[in-house]
Amino acid sequence: MKLNIALLAGDGIGPEVIDQAVKVSDAVAAKFGHEISWTPALTGAAAIDAVGEPYPDQTHEVCVAADAVLFGAIGHPRFDNDPSAKVRPEQGLLKMRQKLGLFANVRPTFTFPSLIEKSPLKKERIEGTDLVFLRELTGGIYFGKRGREDNDNTAYDTCTYTRAEVERLAKKGFEMAMQRSKKLCCVDKANVLETSRLWRETVQKLEKDYPEVEVSYEFVDAVAMRLVQWPSAYDVLITENLFGDILTDEASVISGSMGLMPSASLGEKTSLFEPIHGSYPQAAGKDIANPLATVLSAAMMFETAFGLKDEAEAIREVVNKSLAEGVVTEDLADGGKAYKTSEVGNWLAENI
Amino acid sequence: MKLNIALLAGDGIGPEVIDQAVKVSDAVAAKFGHEISWTPALTGAAAIDAVGEPYPDQTHEVCVAADAVLFGAIGHPRFDNDPSAKVRPEQGLLKMRQKLGLFANVRPTFTFPSLIEKSPLKKERIEGTDLVFLRELTGGIYFGKRGREDNDNTAYDTCTYTRAEVERLAKKGFEMAMQRSKKLCCVDKANVLETSRLWRETVQKLEKDYPEVEVSYEFVDAVAMRLVQWPSAYDVLITENLFGDILTDEASVISGSMGLMPSASLGEKTSLFEPIHGSYPQAAGKDIANPLATVLSAAMMFETAFGLKDEAEAIREVVNKSLAEGVVTEDLADGGKAYKTSEVGNWLAENI
Ligand SMILES: CC(C)[C@H](C(=O)O)[C@@H](O)C(=O)O
Ligand SMILES: CC(C)[C@H](C(=O)O)[C@@H](O)C(=O)O
Repeated sequence: MKLNIALLAGDGIGPEVIDQAVKVSDAVAAKFGHEISWTPALTGAAAIDAVGEPYPDQTHEVCVAADAVLFGAIGHPRFDNDPSAKVRPEQGLLKMRQKLGLFANVRPTFTFPSLIEKSPLKKERIEGTDLVFLRELTGGIYFGKRGREDNDNTAYDTCTYTRAEVERLAKKGFEMAMQRSKKLCCVDKANVLETSRLWRETVQKLEKDYPEVEVSYEFVDAVAMRLVQWPSAYDVLITENLFGDILTDEASVISGSMGLMPSASLGEKTSLFEPIHGSYPQAAGKDIANPLATVLSAAMMFETAFGLKDEAEAIREVVNKSLAEGVVTEDLADGGKAYKTSEVGNWLAENI
Repeated sequence: MKLNIALLAGDGIGPEVIDQAVKVSDAVAAKFGHEISWTPALTGAAAIDAVGEPYPDQTHEVCVAADAVLFGAIGHPRFDNDPSAKVRPEQGLLKMRQKLGLFANVRPTFTFPSLIEKSPLKKERIEGTDLVFLRELTGGIYFGKRGREDNDNTAYDTCTYTRAEVERLAKKGFEMAMQRSKKLCCVDKANVLETSRLWRETVQKLEKDYPEVEVSYEFVDAVAMRLVQWPSAYDVLITENLFGDILTDEASVISGSMGLMPSASLGEKTSLFEPIHGSYPQAAGKDIANPLATVLSAAMMFETAFGLKDEAEAIREVVNKSLAEGVVTEDLADGGKAYKTSEVGNWLAENI
């Protein structure tokens, strides 16, 4: 199979961790007889510096032409604490999501037995946690009308959802539930918000098409509590953009494996794969960042974008092996030997 | 001093836990030479049953005439999973907040050394946690314009804030920070929302009036993570209505003392005090519910509404004593003797 992949390394540690994912992907492709063509493109602060735009048109064209996008991280400290700056890396992210139509953000949270002690939660609370959030990513209050009124003394944001937007996301949720344990939780604030009532109505209507799926409806505040109390009670959760932003970040810390969590953003045509961690500028260029979340994002890409399950499994296996054998970066070394980012990548590629 | 208190017991376990708070308040009043006049009024499902309205006008008049409101809990299972029902107990809550102008919800989260093991988080993560959220309670997306368009196929909600609303809440936050450890965190989503940018601007302008307060600005998704990672890093947090709804519930579970957490909702004239737990209908009428959160809410009332610090301290002390001596309801009994709700109340009143 010929795989055309757009490569958006981004800022901070992005380029370093992306390099390792490329090595591992190339190794798995060689083993299974595929050929990958990587097309790099600029994004984030790097793109602002080069062409004054965090998601330039050229980059968009590269993404559209590709079968999948592998993404590092964006964000740079010089843009922090200045949310009103004219051009910001995050705007590139939002523009990219919208222009590529990446409507479903898939964020798994699971535990690695060898890392479970790193969780702030007690082991007995998180054992067996294996949940996945489906966050709507191109609608809601992120993309609604906003502005100032009344002589700059009033600000407003609008949250809007159409039935079609909810349906598209919810269907993905039901399908995912069918492939997992047939449990789906719709997270909303239907006791207050009209958009949430539309969400609930729409999901309720879909229930008859998936009679095997057991659906629950929970309020976002309750889920924010229960995620910390008993995360293993959840399986597939679907929710709107802003709730998803908050809850997926909350969920990511409970497993103790935050630095290892991959994610996918699915569109009708193109899909994008990226680690959930940020650009971690303090570590940039030092060859110390943990590349595993990006490598596991590449695994998600093989499985989700190309339907190549064995290839994905091969990557996950070699990652587990590296953890078991202690071939890990300093964040996981725990007093043992700390390998460099590039050394971990080389080891993974060789052991595929 | 003569204290006029409106008594809104509400639904479920509300009446039982309120009874204990009344006993303890009367005991502390007798000890310190005050006289309390309690005026009961209907609210929640109880009010819907009686007069078809969750927050009837008569109840509002009782609250307006009082110096403070002590509130139990509202909510009844027959209204659950029917968010579009015409009359719902929660509507009473929102109407009450709005009509009484309860603009600042104060939600402390602290640890009781004897309960620290109940937390889902590891002890070393939560030791020393003592934070307080100030949630804006009468604005934002809870009270903005909402509706349907496009043949019922689109729903929208509007989040609106005025500079004056933000300033009023933020000032309370700065004042509270001055009385505590002079650290204030403004939680927003200023990288996306215009209302958040107004929040940040307004808080930034106030900084010069409180030069001793160290202010930080964090995004809501980051706070959702850090609350679980290192809750003790926070002190006073201010935020808008919906973020506050989610984060205060999340924060309430980390200390392991959720069943004991009080809260206050401050208005310009009247203030309201209530436990953060719900109406817990399964336990209603069984005399088993833990009354301590309501008793501690009464303590907050003495201190905040009446400036009676010693009285508040006397209540907190007797609560600590009951915990130390194991005079607790079944949720805290841990294999030891479980006292009834009313027995705990009697013991507290006698030991004041
Ligand atoms: C950077 C920011 C705009 C973005 C979001 O809120 O979606 C980020 O928090 C995320 O979750 O990818
Ligand atoms: C019942 C509901 C409307 C309410 C809210 O969202 O404010 C509740 O969750 C709370 O926090 O008091």
